[in-house]
Amino acid sequence: MNLEKTDTIAAIATAHGVGSIAIVRLSGPEALAIAQKITKKALKPRFAHLRTLYNHQNEIIDQAIVIYFKAPHSFTGEDVVEFQCHGGIIVADMVLRTLLYHGARLAEPGEFSKRAFLNGKIDLSEAEAIAKIIEAKSEDAAKILARQLKGELASFVEEVREQLIRILAYVEVNIDYAEEDLPVDLQEQMQNQLETISKNLAKTLESSKRREGLIEGFKVAIIGKPNTGKSSLLNALLNYERAIVSDIAGTTRDTIEESVRIGSHLVRFVDTAGIREAQDTIERIGVERSIKAIEESDIVIAMFDASRPLESEDQKIIDLIQRYKNEKDIIVVLNKIDLGKEITIEDIEPIELSVKQDISPLIKKLQTILDSYANTEEILLVSRRQIDAVTKALEAIDAAKIPLEMGELEIFAFHINEAIAAIGSITRPMESSELLDKMFGEFCLGK
Amino acid sequence: MNLEKTDTIAAIATAHGVGSIAIVRLSGPEALAIAQKITKKALKPRFAHLRTLYNHQNEIIDQAIVIYFKAPHSFTGEDVVEFQCHGGIIVADMVLRTLLYHGARLAEPGEFSKRAFLNGKIDLSEAEAIAKIIEAKSEDAAKILARQLKGELASFVEEVREQLIRILAYVEVNIDYAEEDLPVDLQEQMQNQLETISKNLAKTLESSKRREGLIEGFKVAIIGKPNTGKSSLLNALLNYERAIVSDIAGTTRDTIEESVRIGSHLVRFVDTAGIREAQDTIERIGVERSIKAIEESDIVIAMFDASRPLESEDQKIIDLIQRYKNEKDIIVVLNKIDLGKEITIEDIEPIELSVKQDISPLIKKLQTILDSYANTEEILLVSRRQIDAVTKALEAIDAAKIPLEMGELEIFAFHINEAIAAIGSITRPMESSELLDKMFGEFCLGK
Repeated sequence: MNLEKTDTIAAIATAHGVGSIAIVRLSGPEALAIAQKITKKALKPRFAHLRTLYNHQNEIIDQAIVIYFKAPHSFTGEDVVEFQCHGGIIVADMVLRTLLYHGARLAEPGEFSKRAFLNGKIDLSEAEAIAKIIEAKSEDAAKILARQLKGELASFVEEVREQLIRILAYVEVNIDYAEEDLPVDLQEQMQNQLETISKNLAKTLESSKRREGLIEGFKVAIIGKPNTGKSSLLNALLNYERAIVSDIAGTTRDTIEESVRIGSHLVRFVDTAGIREAQDTIERIGVERSIKAIEESDIVIAMFDASRPLESEDQKIIDLIQRYKNEKDIIVVLNKIDLGKEITIEDIEPIELSVKQDISPLIKKLQTILDSYANTEEILLVSRRQIDAVTKALEAIDAAKIPLEMGELEIFAFHINEAIAAIGSITRPMESSELLDKMFGEFCLGK
Repeated sequence: MNLEKTDTIAAIATAHGVGSIAIVRLSGPEALAIAQKITKKALKPRFAHLRTLYNHQNEIIDQAIVIYFKAPHSFTGEDVVEFQCHGGIIVADMVLRTLLYHGARLAEPGEFSKRAFLNGKIDLSEAEAIAKIIEAKSEDAAKILARQLKGELASFVEEVREQLIRILAYVEVNIDYAEEDLPVDLQEQMQNQLETISKNLAKTLESSKRREGLIEGFKVAIIGKPNTGKSSLLNALLNYERAIVSDIAGTTRDTIEESVRIGSHLVRFVDTAGIREAQDTIERIGVERSIKAIEESDIVIAMFDASRPLESEDQKIIDLIQRYKNEKDIIVVLNKIDLGKEITIEDIEPIELSVKQDISPLIKKLQTILDSYANTEEILLVSRRQIDAVTKALEAIDAAKIPLEMGELEIFAFHINEAIAAIGSITRPMESSELLDKMFGEFCLGK
């Protein structure tokens, strides 16, 4: 047990503002006793009671649904009581203050989740999913996080850890026999096993990086010579379902202005300031800027003016398309098709449209590409911390290969241990409590 | 049963934004069947189940606490299922859309409360309390509304109704016997009873009007000749706990700027624009403006400059104080006391302070007066509708007095019936469904 856990904490768990219901959450050894002071009645575990709530002056403050979750069968693993009171900001605040009056302490941000972690109710990958799910900006993100919350990444981590531990066990037996070399067949067998683990981790790392957009939004670059309609397209895209995106409270203004939801996906525009301000990018700054935009993006939209014959500047764009076509999803758009088609581009299947009239063919194409990113059964890492952990594990496995070949089993075992610690840190880090404080401190209040 | 009730409705019931928990509410005959489609499991009434939620494509969308309230033991009186899902806006939205996919309909604002009313779970006074509690801006308001929600006003209405019905019953017996006059003692007895009812209603009306500030905020006027420090005082008051008030989402900017919470009370400043813009009110526009400010307010703060002898303009303010001292709570403030005390005012006990240094003596005095308003056991009417109903009942009772004296029992009975309908309309109006639609339509969504 941890000293920090011995007090009882309380916080408002629902969003701040006007709604029908607000929830106040109470967790800790005194939760039930405090709840009985405010309800003046007994509470049966897991039963949704309708109760009158009283303040310390015995005035009625609300009629609420009160639910007692008996330890350890609660979110935090402690006794938890939830008060579903009437919405708005005053009632929940009065309930909270009454709980504090009866001895609860105002919870710090993330403290409920931290207790859940310390009590073994959730691992760190699940805690991260909880924190991120609240700020999810697309269905893609919410679905991936729900899978992680259900323990998918934790199972993967456990599997890899066990494989590494098994290899380590073999080696440790052989260290004891030592002096003589490791039997050749055993060495090969272990090399093969390590190779499989490496490939597995590298694949996860690779697809996670490729699918970062599921969480943060996919980056789309719009390139093309001046006056092909890049700005008009950007505006048309930004106006597409804009209302929904700007709905998100707490989103910075910049993000709102340059993000848009397409179906279940969030799309962000790369370097749009550049596109807006310097329509003459190609002329003035050359292809460097376009290359940078392409490299930073998941999807590239290359714009051409259909109503004019191919020019040398268009050719520069075509060269870029050829160069990147195996790395990036590139959509070629022939704009201004309503003014006639004078352009010819070989070996490329373009979308012909008029941005001023209808961008739906492009939206449809984007949707298809984005769907292919989203429809994945692969294990995905959702945070920088998780990606760093897998990278570190891969490096350690890599560092173990030569000692294995050389028969330096102690050095080999050291690196495998490193890999085990690295991969295990995704769910159960052996780290300082300051680190945990920092992690959970970034959660929102009441979580 | 009502045709409108036969479908199943759903809505997000918590405030929109970033929070740990969001609640999606489902009500109607198909609620349980739909809930089982999204959870894929059985649900025990009133039990808080932890369930995985799936969308129609069988993808996991969340882990949620799911509670089934079996009809009629639910808020609406229908089968209700609540999903406590992870907060933020995406998850609750996915849950809601899955419910709609399975056949629920998006609820209209106030539709849950309307169903509760139509199913006899709450009366109209309770429904009004629910609607108002969400937008309560002070503890005073929340507490009064919690009492009304607990049925206090409903009991009062029922009591008055029964008294009137008893009188009506007497009369109707006598109408049948008619031709001859009503026995004198019976007539007197009924006159006395009516008088008692009248007084009771008038008292409720009077104290409700006097305490409107409990719900909407108490109005405070600051009067005084130029340069006594009215603007400085207003600024000091507005800065007092300002942060808390500006917290309220959806409050108009005007309200924020001129309201402040003092303890559990909300205070609003009357005609502050006038005070700010025309510091020379008394000189230029005479006393009329001050009179208007006094009459519109619950509490008046009269400011004098302590450092200068009484002037003729101060005398005008003193005359106003004398004129209104029995009607209004008037606080006399001698400001600039740090510059010495030259002023003498007879028969008045002032608060001496320096606005620039410390307004806490004034805050304390305000708090005492506001506490006396708030500490009431009296029945209070909290809406214009309720006040209109009692006013109408009083008028009808008044109109019944002369027919009673004249022995015109049918006319008397007609007016008493009017009074019964008027008072009864507070909880159970006999009115058109359009009226109900209008009333509940003003509720917030998910209520």
